[in-house]
Amino acid sequence: MVANPRTFKLTIAYDGTDFRGWQRLPGKGRSVQETLERALSRVFGVETEAIGAGRTDAGVHALGQVASVRAATAKELATILRDLNAVLPADIAVTALEEADPRFHARHLATAKTYRYRVLSSSVRSPLDRRYSHFVPDALDAEAMRRAADVLRGKHNFQSFTNLKEKGKSFEREIHSINVSENGSFVDMVFRGDGFLHNQVRIMASALIDAGLGKTDAAELRTILDARDRSRAPGAAPAAGLCLMSIEY
Amino acid sequence: MVANPRTFKLTIAYDGTDFRGWQRLPGKGRSVQETLERALSRVFGVETEAIGAGRTDAGVHALGQVASVRAATAKELATILRDLNAVLPADIAVTALEEADPRFHARHLATAKTYRYRVLSSSVRSPLDRRYSHFVPDALDAEAMRRAADVLRGKHNFQSFTNLKEKGKSFEREIHSINVSENGSFVDMVFRGDGFLHNQVRIMASALIDAGLGKTDAAELRTILDARDRSRAPGAAPAAGLCLMSIEY
Repeated sequence: MVANPRTFKLTIAYDGTDFRGWQRLPGKGRSVQETLERALSRVFGVETEAIGAGRTDAGVHALGQVASVRAATAKELATILRDLNAVLPADIAVTALEEADPRFHARHLATAKTYRYRVLSSSVRSPLDRRYSHFVPDALDAEAMRRAADVLRGKHNFQSFTNLKEKGKSFEREIHSINVSENGSFVDMVFRGDGFLHNQVRIMASALIDAGLGKTDAAELRTILDARDRSRAPGAAPAAGLCLMSIEY
Repeated sequence: MVANPRTFKLTIAYDGTDFRGWQRLPGKGRSVQETLERALSRVFGVETEAIGAGRTDAGVHALGQVASVRAATAKELATILRDLNAVLPADIAVTALEEADPRFHARHLATAKTYRYRVLSSSVRSPLDRRYSHFVPDALDAEAMRRAADVLRGKHNFQSFTNLKEKGKSFEREIHSINVSENGSFVDMVFRGDGFLHNQVRIMASALIDAGLGKTDAAELRTILDARDRSRAPGAAPAAGLCLMSIEY
């Protein structure tokens, strides 16, 4: 790398359906990170690393993933943006590109993340929505979901709501807000927090769907939360419904 | 077939991306008609034909395609609907099933059809919308599009706006309304008419996009319409933006 590398903040959208997730894991299939790094390396003419704010899982979408990138280049921002989108496949796009402070780090400096979990609640499934929502063939009680969401809001130990198993890691996270809204046949749950444990959003979404179906309620969710026991909470809701909306710094 | 076949009206939604179109053409790839007929034949236990209202082309979507089907079955409507959707692949669904008059014919009796052409007008492409919209990387002047649409509305000879080449066929069609609306970065053109010639909606959409870009205008469109000459109008807009919304009887 030459003397003065510049630091960039990239905002990225992708359709997660055909990716094994954000993270590059050689031999494990097509990743967003590797696909993006290949495009960056082509545009900058030198091997370039992309650090993502959130390591989305296989099948999870993004409208506002953020990556930090360092590269020594004299190209203008608009040129880099255009060239990247010309080289990237149709299921990834860089939606914004900014010059950032040299100390900018997409993961370490993130202060809040927002995810949306989208449910299609309808008597019949919808082929045109199947890639970007989770189909539930029953009516959901949005008010019951909001009451259940109130239990999860705030600072808690979320051990019951993660598949993270590593010892010595903190299970404490703060959820700033959970917004449940109905839009036609869609029920959207928007989670904003300082960070989320592995699978946490999908397990919380699953629990809130159960509350909407009357299978659980706010009181039972409090018991599950207090138990700090993964076996007490439901399985994770399907990846297709989840989308990383934005990262704050 | 046994003595008393029943007649059904099916409303069908599909993601056209992975179909070669509605019409069954042996050896020409996966068609919506064949896929639906295979499901019907399984559910009814006897080879069953589906007659579609509109022969959508490869890649064109539907939210309200209609098919007529005759079958001798004692099953209840709700059971047939459930069984069909259980057997159909994820990119097709039967969204409504009704008992119809024995004379019902989905194509011959259709009195009006509505298609939507969706454009994503944005500086960057959108991976999560790419399957269901046509990306135009420039701003569109919706008012100019509406003025151009006024020229196409009404009863006209649409020979300039179709790839139909058969001699002796009528090129006359009546367009009842063309509604141009903006919704965020989307520009939707909704065409309602008594029927449309082959590729007519996509060629009209292409012409209206050109009007929105300032490449043509209402006066020029009138000249093109009056010329009755296919070479005067632009090429058809991409299939991904088109969706068959509803059929009237």
